[in-house]
Amino acid sequence: MQARTLGELADYVGARVVGDPNVTIKSASTLGRARDGDISFLVNRKYQKQLRTTKASAVIVGKEVTEAAVPLLIAEDPYYAFMQIMVLLHGHRKHKKVGISPRASISDSAKIGIDCHIHDFVAVADDAKIGDGCIIYPNVYIGQGVQIGNDSIVYPSVTIYDGCKIGNRVIINANSTIGEDGFGYASYKGVHHKIPQIGGVVIEDDVEIGVCCGIERGTLGDTVIGQGSKLGDLITIGHGTKIGPHCLLVAQVGIAGSTSLGHHCVVGGQVGIVGHINIGNNVTIAAQAGVVNNIPDGQVVLGAPAIEANQGKRAYSMIQYLPEMRQNIRNLQSLIGQLTSSTGLGSETPGGQ
Amino acid sequence: MQARTLGELADYVGARVVGDPNVTIKSASTLGRARDGDISFLVNRKYQKQLRTTKASAVIVGKEVTEAAVPLLIAEDPYYAFMQIMVLLHGHRKHKKVGISPRASISDSAKIGIDCHIHDFVAVADDAKIGDGCIIYPNVYIGQGVQIGNDSIVYPSVTIYDGCKIGNRVIINANSTIGEDGFGYASYKGVHHKIPQIGGVVIEDDVEIGVCCGIERGTLGDTVIGQGSKLGDLITIGHGTKIGPHCLLVAQVGIAGSTSLGHHCVVGGQVGIVGHINIGNNVTIAAQAGVVNNIPDGQVVLGAPAIEANQGKRAYSMIQYLPEMRQNIRNLQSLIGQLTSSTGLGSETPGGQ
Amino acid sequence: MQARTLGELADYVGARVVGDPNVTIKSASTLGRARDGDISFLVNRKYQKQLRTTKASAVIVGKEVTEAAVPLLIAEDPYYAFMQIMVLLHGHRKHKKVGISPRASISDSAKIGIDCHIHDFVAVADDAKIGDGCIIYPNVYIGQGVQIGNDSIVYPSVTIYDGCKIGNRVIINANSTIGEDGFGYASYKGVHHKIPQIGGVVIEDDVEIGVCCGIERGTLGDTVIGQGSKLGDLITIGHGTKIGPHCLLVAQVGIAGSTSLGHHCVVGGQVGIVGHINIGNNVTIAAQAGVVNNIPDGQVVLGAPAIEANQGKRAYSMIQYLPEMRQNIRNLQSLIGQLTSSTGLGSETPGGQ
Repeated sequence: MQARTLGELADYVGARVVGDPNVTIKSASTLGRARDGDISFLVNRKYQKQLRTTKASAVIVGKEVTEAAVPLLIAEDPYYAFMQIMVLLHGHRKHKKVGISPRASISDSAKIGIDCHIHDFVAVADDAKIGDGCIIYPNVYIGQGVQIGNDSIVYPSVTIYDGCKIGNRVIINANSTIGEDGFGYASYKGVHHKIPQIGGVVIEDDVEIGVCCGIERGTLGDTVIGQGSKLGDLITIGHGTKIGPHCLLVAQVGIAGSTSLGHHCVVGGQVGIVGHINIGNNVTIAAQAGVVNNIPDGQVVLGAPAIEANQGKRAYSMIQYLPEMRQNIRNLQSLIGQLTSSTGLGSETPGGQ
Repeated sequence: MQARTLGELADYVGARVVGDPNVTIKSASTLGRARDGDISFLVNRKYQKQLRTTKASAVIVGKEVTEAAVPLLIAEDPYYAFMQIMVLLHGHRKHKKVGISPRASISDSAKIGIDCHIHDFVAVADDAKIGDGCIIYPNVYIGQGVQIGNDSIVYPSVTIYDGCKIGNRVIINANSTIGEDGFGYASYKGVHHKIPQIGGVVIEDDVEIGVCCGIERGTLGDTVIGQGSKLGDLITIGHGTKIGPHCLLVAQVGIAGSTSLGHHCVVGGQVGIVGHINIGNNVTIAAQAGVVNNIPDGQVVLGAPAIEANQGKRAYSMIQYLPEMRQNIRNLQSLIGQLTSSTGLGSETPGGQ
Repeated sequence: MQARTLGELADYVGARVVGDPNVTIKSASTLGRARDGDISFLVNRKYQKQLRTTKASAVIVGKEVTEAAVPLLIAEDPYYAFMQIMVLLHGHRKHKKVGISPRASISDSAKIGIDCHIHDFVAVADDAKIGDGCIIYPNVYIGQGVQIGNDSIVYPSVTIYDGCKIGNRVIINANSTIGEDGFGYASYKGVHHKIPQIGGVVIEDDVEIGVCCGIERGTLGDTVIGQGSKLGDLITIGHGTKIGPHCLLVAQVGIAGSTSLGHHCVVGGQVGIVGHINIGNNVTIAAQAGVVNNIPDGQVVLGAPAIEANQGKRAYSMIQYLPEMRQNIRNLQSLIGQLTSSTGLGSETPGGQ
């Protein structure tokens, strides 16, 4: 960690300083918690009023704001600038160079690239192939014939079943499982018979997977997590499902089998998506939605069942008025009953509830 | 993997060939991905049009279809026939015969049956008993007094707490936990006091459990997963709950404690079921439902709160019309207000919203 | 396990006996499963009728009940009395005293307190500090600089990332992960760039965490689980979120980042809570709710979107009447159309659906 002046940071991220460019920045923090030497950022408007009170030495913002009492870094994309500065000041996690632990169990037929660090109690099965510069933390299991590219990181207690293919610069967090059998049974006369799952899993380059996820192998083809996609914690992806590149899946999402997502989709927390449907590109699915139908490119949906977001926001927020609506209908029925009888309009009456 | 003729496969599964029985089948694939030598199948009507374009050498179908351009295998239950053919052509996962690894840690008082394969870094505690023909993958923990039957498979990093009973031919996938303490606390003066959970867990024969599941031990009696039931990934079963035989629980289901499910229930993904209720036999619960009441035998339910499915499908799909309905009610109120005043029907007015 | 008379138990918990104080109590069980020598309890009224038929030797109740056929222990708080008796009769789980296993891998720079028991295949990284009386089960990973207090229990295959702080008497169940990176990316020109997560995780004293949970480390500040809070299975807590003391979070809850919960909150199973909001003290959130707004102290909410519980119970239970309501509106529109035309009230007509 090396201190920089605000001016140096501005040069580094291509931003503009309003205020003293010579203030020293050592670390970053939130507006509310920052102290002298910290840079903070404003992305969520909710926190804008903290600009007046923050103890930060500088704040990254998207446009000049008058209420700020501190030097500002005006960046086109303040969150991206914040990321760049965080990487500059702190870097990513440093991994101890442990080499290949003698307490790891590595098959003679496995191939390990150069500059790999394989910790204690890792088991690497026959014919597995690990590229250069990988870090494999303790208690990981790498099954038979698994292939891992270069510079990937596998955190503790991850299990990768036989034959799965992991790309370059992939990060798999602790206790996740890649390539377990898909949930596939043929039910016959009341008994569920397991169907061999002969497909695999392909995790493309630059994917990150959270903790306690399960990525099922395909029944026949592969399950695919596309390049650059990021999965949060406790997510399960069904057999044969294909997630396109650069998607974001927030925690606890569940996607059934044989579904496809396009590129740059954003899937909120706890969303469920049924099998055998197609989700287009640039689709956004709000948290907890239940998706049961295809979604075209670019659409935003919410709710269970999921519907277009503007419509959905109005519709779901109206559930709270249901008792009132029902009472109003009853009142109308009563009134119209009176009107009908008083005007002598015959025997037709509103259907009772 | 051994090639067969379509005629041989027909004999094997008791099906009928329409077309050339001499085509050679080496593997299986989906209609869309199949190549020469592959057999495919049609179960989901959605894919029926692919019968015209598939490159498969044969397709398993339920009844003769005119549009098919390839030989057909007509089977009473095409998915069951597909399963049988998959097992014939590919078999289930082959497990390396590693014997008892010297890098496993097995208590002297544990009993291990014949033909077991216990991998590196497995810990088996005192008085545990493992039957014949079991496969225990790396980094598994088998607690004190645990009993496992014959021919069961325990994948990496599974934890089985003390005293749990696992049947024959059970499969427990990676990173799942069996027998952790139930979520039981007595709250007194604002502090939550842990209640000893002295019940156990019984996993009956032929159960399969997905990855990252948690099956709590009972507070007093046992938590039971009935014979032949199959659980997907990331499922949690509460203390003392009893799942009957031959149920299917899709991923991310959560069932609270002291609930019972009958036999042959199907529980969709992300369903939540409260504690202390009774779900009958042959009940089907749609994905994401929230079940708060008993369900009688054979019923199909959906929604949160869950209601009978036909009623529920209509009701939940109508949420999207709520804004329109509310507007219509307002229009009616306005109209009836005009009618009432014009007909001189007195002072009663519809309740305002 | 030592038998006691009912009278001794009454003295121990400060309760009153109705019936024979000399009956011997050896264990506890449910009303339905109890046998001679068991004490049972009645908390949930649903089971009250079992008081007539139970085979228990005594039952703990809150007030005298006439239908009981067995001796009663009248306690102010029967569930708390039951907990005390369970601890007296059975105690909590006994952990084998294994010392520090030579098959564990413990860094020379790690500090281990007295009377710790560290099992096989545990990896403890540099500068980690474990207090006195801790039990660390097999296949646990304790990252660099992690601090654990006294008398804590870490079950198998738990992973604690670098720098996390765990208090005293904390219990972390199997396959859970503490301190993985928060789900933080800056998306720029279609690519998601990982933001270093330099915050930590603080698990305060007396917390219990279920299996397969993921507690993300903060981006800048710490993620905090407050003293005495209890988390069920498969829960995920986002980066920088702060859970106050003495909260209960039931299984499969997901809370996004930078949210705060007060003290004594109860969060039902499968609840989702968005990021950047404030939940007050003593808040109760019903199972499966979706919380998107701040909640004031003491409020009870349910539903998705979550609303106040009394209102919500009526509103959500009314979804089943939507088809009927919509039909009634149509009927009213038709009737009012007739009325309007018959009374000659002009051309205005109700909006068609």
